[in-house]
Amino acid sequence: MNTKVFRNISYGVYIITAMDGERPTGCTANSAMQITSAPATIAISINHDNFTNGCIKKTKKFAISILAETSAPLLIGTFGFKSGKDTDKFTDVTYEMREDLPVIQDSCGYIVCKVIDQMETATHTVFLGEVIDGDVFNASGQPMTYAYYHQVIKGKSPKNAPTYLPDEEKKLVKYECQVCGHIYEGENLPEDYICPICGVNAEHFKKIS
Amino acid sequence: MNTKVFRNISYGVYIITAMDGERPTGCTANSAMQITSAPATIAISINHDNFTNGCIKKTKKFAISILAETSAPLLIGTFGFKSGKDTDKFTDVTYEMREDLPVIQDSCGYIVCKVIDQMETATHTVFLGEVIDGDVFNASGQPMTYAYYHQVIKGKSPKNAPTYLPDEEKKLVKYECQVCGHIYEGENLPEDYICPICGVNAEHFKKIS
Repeated sequence: MNTKVFRNISYGVYIITAMDGERPTGCTANSAMQITSAPATIAISINHDNFTNGCIKKTKKFAISILAETSAPLLIGTFGFKSGKDTDKFTDVTYEMREDLPVIQDSCGYIVCKVIDQMETATHTVFLGEVIDGDVFNASGQPMTYAYYHQVIKGKSPKNAPTYLPDEEKKLVKYECQVCGHIYEGENLPEDYICPICGVNAEHFKKIS
Repeated sequence: MNTKVFRNISYGVYIITAMDGERPTGCTANSAMQITSAPATIAISINHDNFTNGCIKKTKKFAISILAETSAPLLIGTFGFKSGKDTDKFTDVTYEMREDLPVIQDSCGYIVCKVIDQMETATHTVFLGEVIDGDVFNASGQPMTYAYYHQVIKGKSPKNAPTYLPDEEKKLVKYECQVCGHIYEGENLPEDYICPICGVNAEHFKKIS
């Protein structure tokens, strides 16, 4: 078996949110798909280790914020590389409450669901949610695909590719964030550099080329 | 609720195949996502009305062929706009047998699964499959996203966009396939035109602009 084939499955990038009592929490996920249209249902997959998983099980509700290509990359890190158990992920995030759940404004829309079924696997729960609310936030923004995240945002492919110039000529080197994998490419890593994905400082970067 | 938000969920385009006795069958689908990595499991969603659904339930096995942007568009129509109940969808399709299931060669890879769980909804079955085989067929081909299918292949956006020229100047008109929705754009619809998606002839096209 060649597991590289799994990379060819297409996904979006989502922030799945839920309530922990009175406190909003959430995590980054790439697994969401619509299952039926009438009534509209959506399946998501959340790792057992995510604090959000337990909150969804308790409250039987979750919201999906659909990230756009223009959404702030730091959202992915904030919700993806920290645990909601001991971090308030919403401190610096602008959100609205819809059907008593937090949805991220800097996205191309949201969907709120109540859990109507679930399926357990070794490491993840597949929640089936019936949609109770949903709206578009920024109709002009293209949804971010997981491929876009890997190729553009994680730095493997520059968003605004400069006119080609061999690396040798520019003496570019690469530094990789040891927390989230983001790659910085430049002549030097600035001392005050902050990872645009997960927010850590330059000390967490390692030269890789 | 604004159901337009559902269009912002990202998907790929897949041919899900199964065996009907000794006969291969399959259908086009956009709903597939990896759930766990060890053991690797994948969830797919198949409408009850698809003949393939019953075949998967009987045999407890299915294969996913992952279409690439370069895959023949006719594959989507062959597997998406006809029923496998009374059509041999594989007549003109090149396929290989892997783990006793047909996989489409003109794709960027395949995954074969045995069903380990399933969840019923009003109109669809969500099958959870444990991966028993998988490989990449054409590493250089980008996976086709559902957005690409709608924007490029269905004709809403030309693949090789010509230098911009107002439609008025070119006197272009649009014809829509009444079977699959493909849009032909040109000065005239050729009499011998065959829909590249579903294979019907020019009689099934209607002028829409």
